[in-house]
Amino acid sequence: SVGLQRAEVTHGIREVVLCKDAKGLVGLRVRAVNKGVFVSLVHAGTPAALAGLRFGDQILQLNGQNCAGWDTDKAMGAFKKAGGERIALAVRDRPFERTITMHKDSTNHIGFVVKNGKITAITKDSSAARNGVLTEHNLLEVNGQNVVGMKDKEISRAIDVGERSVTITIMPSFLYEHMMKCISSSLVSKVMDHSIPDV
Amino acid sequence: SVGLQRAEVTHGIREVVLCKDAKGLVGLRVRAVNKGVFVSLVHAGTPAALAGLRFGDQILQLNGQNCAGWDTDKAMGAFKKAGGERIALAVRDRPFERTITMHKDSTNHIGFVVKNGKITAITKDSSAARNGVLTEHNLLEVNGQNVVGMKDKEISRAIDVGERSVTITIMPSFLYEHMMKCISSSLVSKVMDHSIPDV
Repeated sequence: SVGLQRAEVTHGIREVVLCKDAKGLVGLRVRAVNKGVFVSLVHAGTPAALAGLRFGDQILQLNGQNCAGWDTDKAMGAFKKAGGERIALAVRDRPFERTITMHKDSTNHIGFVVKNGKITAITKDSSAARNGVLTEHNLLEVNGQNVVGMKDKEISRAIDVGERSVTITIMPSFLYEHMMKCISSSLVSKVMDHSIPDV
Repeated sequence: SVGLQRAEVTHGIREVVLCKDAKGLVGLRVRAVNKGVFVSLVHAGTPAALAGLRFGDQILQLNGQNCAGWDTDKAMGAFKKAGGERIALAVRDRPFERTITMHKDSTNHIGFVVKNGKITAITKDSSAARNGVLTEHNLLEVNGQNVVGMKDKEISRAIDVGERSVTITIMPSFLYEHMMKCISSSLVSKVMDHSIPDV
């Protein structure tokens, strides 16, 4: 399905070209982590969302300048200063993320507990246990749909309504929390792009 | 090359069958992290090394039992208790690791500083900077050769003697340190399998 294709994490490098919108914005926030610059927020419907940028993508270059070593302010400033017509980025696909595909059991469960978007427990002998799902990880996508900032109930629904096979995208929580530092959760749930991939 | 093939991290699941050696050992240590069981040490020349188990592999099942939720002692005990003839494991290939391939510049450098096996700095506008190599990561392999427990000088040599294209395998340091807790570094440098992949 398109959702599963979208869920795939390649860790590869791609080129992304953005134009600013009428307000002069591209619609993303970035954050410096370990001398790299990472996408921490993508506003729904903005140039960044339409170009396919996602939470956790690493920005390697902006208009030919290497971003390695920039702090958060310098990176945000570079986006502000860039001309509106053409912002060329080199992007590494979500280096801290990985996907796990599981099959629901006969009772329609996969077998983990999510609290505030974080996996906190694994059910004994469940599909999640057999597949090695880990606690202390945050859930970022379900079948390619972004669930960052969603309520746990909504995340459960996204899993329940899907087919028997479920693909989750996860990231270690300590990295997730580092990227989300200084971003209010109400902002995330309000503006984040949660669209379901077209099938 | 064989080294690059070996370096590839698939995150897939494979079956591994071990027999104990004459001393009744398989030659590995494991550690529980986030409700999963991980390989933390592989002794050179033992059944575990010959079967291709590596630092960071996740043990999902041992003779049909799911390992999710086991603590370190329970996991080590299960290996001790298992019969010597046939220990069947389901193994997920190094879930916390990823590879980055770079090309050396004209001065034969790739552009990062390693201290005690950890990447601590990235050279401005180097190949490492362009490719998004991050600090706070530990170096696990160079061109498929295990460098865990090697001295920094030896690691540099492994990079220098290789071809222009270098593939490194890395893991976030906070996870690496968690796996290495309670294992003395002298033991690691003495017994760890550091063999160079056959070309």
